[in-house]
Amino acid sequence: MEALSQQLDFILELDKLKAVYRRALIKTDNNRFENSAEHSWHIALTAHVFAPYAEDKVDISRVTLMLLLHDIVEIDAGDTFAFDEKAILAEQSDKEIAAANRIFGLLPDTQKEYFTALWHEFEQAETPDASFAKAMDRILPLIQNMKNDGGSWAQNTVYKQQVINRNKHLATSVPKLWTYVLEQIDIATANGWLLEE
Amino acid sequence: MEALSQQLDFILELDKLKAVYRRALIKTDNNRFENSAEHSWHIALTAHVFAPYAEDKVDISRVTLMLLLHDIVEIDAGDTFAFDEKAILAEQSDKEIAAANRIFGLLPDTQKEYFTALWHEFEQAETPDASFAKAMDRILPLIQNMKNDGGSWAQNTVYKQQVINRNKHLATSVPKLWTYVLEQIDIATANGWLLEE
Repeated sequence: MEALSQQLDFILELDKLKAVYRRALIKTDNNRFENSAEHSWHIALTAHVFAPYAEDKVDISRVTLMLLLHDIVEIDAGDTFAFDEKAILAEQSDKEIAAANRIFGLLPDTQKEYFTALWHEFEQAETPDASFAKAMDRILPLIQNMKNDGGSWAQNTVYKQQVINRNKHLATSVPKLWTYVLEQIDIATANGWLLEE
Repeated sequence: MEALSQQLDFILELDKLKAVYRRALIKTDNNRFENSAEHSWHIALTAHVFAPYAEDKVDISRVTLMLLLHDIVEIDAGDTFAFDEKAILAEQSDKEIAAANRIFGLLPDTQKEYFTALWHEFEQAETPDASFAKAMDRILPLIQNMKNDGGSWAQNTVYKQQVINRNKHLATSVPKLWTYVLEQIDIATANGWLLEE
């Protein structure tokens, strides 16, 4: 049972994503930081709830698996803050590719290739499935920050235009949600959670 | 946008599952307790990895959504330990049904009905999809306990026969994994993590 042994190694490796912490705060749990495993669960469900807003036809099963997988590379590469400097984010990309090779490489070949391909598709965000999945990964932190007095925006230095840029492809993938997002960004700016310039 | 407002309420409600803690320990994160949100992520991915072992044809998309949803009721009902007394577990069932009505009831009608039906299907574990999903929910804690010096078994008083009973429907839904599970139970008993009688 060589395949089973490889699969067990991969499944146990996943436990480590529960120790990778993000900047988002969990208000309902003493404002501790959110980890990338529970975040991945949350956006997978968010994708199901928001599927009716997808502008193009999407395969929600592929979208869900992409979202469950998308942060696994952080086990090796760590989480970066969305609004870090560009040089940091570029270096991160190389680390994540190496991480994908190592971690998905624990699996038997067929599964390794399938998971790796889905992860690259998500990163490139060019297909309708990946574009919708990426939109979910963008909108959920916004929803959480709006509920949490500005959350990770207010705790760091983030400009309104940065959040617009980060979310702007929602305009094509989920246009009805983009309208909502723009309204929230205005409210966040009026509240001082985002900076004008 | 009445539907959007309901969907946002549901999505924000989900944050609370990140504060429901189980008996399993996360060795990679200072042996803290695992929460039900990250557990749900982990078994959804486990289901994808173990899908080739399903004895009956399963729809992995439905299985995945069932697993992402299955513990949401714990937001109101809390987590129970699998080996608690029967009276406690029976009372839990009533609490969980009330919780499903309240929490899935936050959603627009079509989604409420779909999610509620999937949750009931999982609980009854009679369809091939639900039976396979339930098998994943059983096998992952065993894999974690074996890696973690007996984990939640060793920290509580658990008998070998209880674990066999809890896992025995793997014999029909994923027979190749059942063989593996029986071997692990024997090792756990030899190590004193499970009690003979």
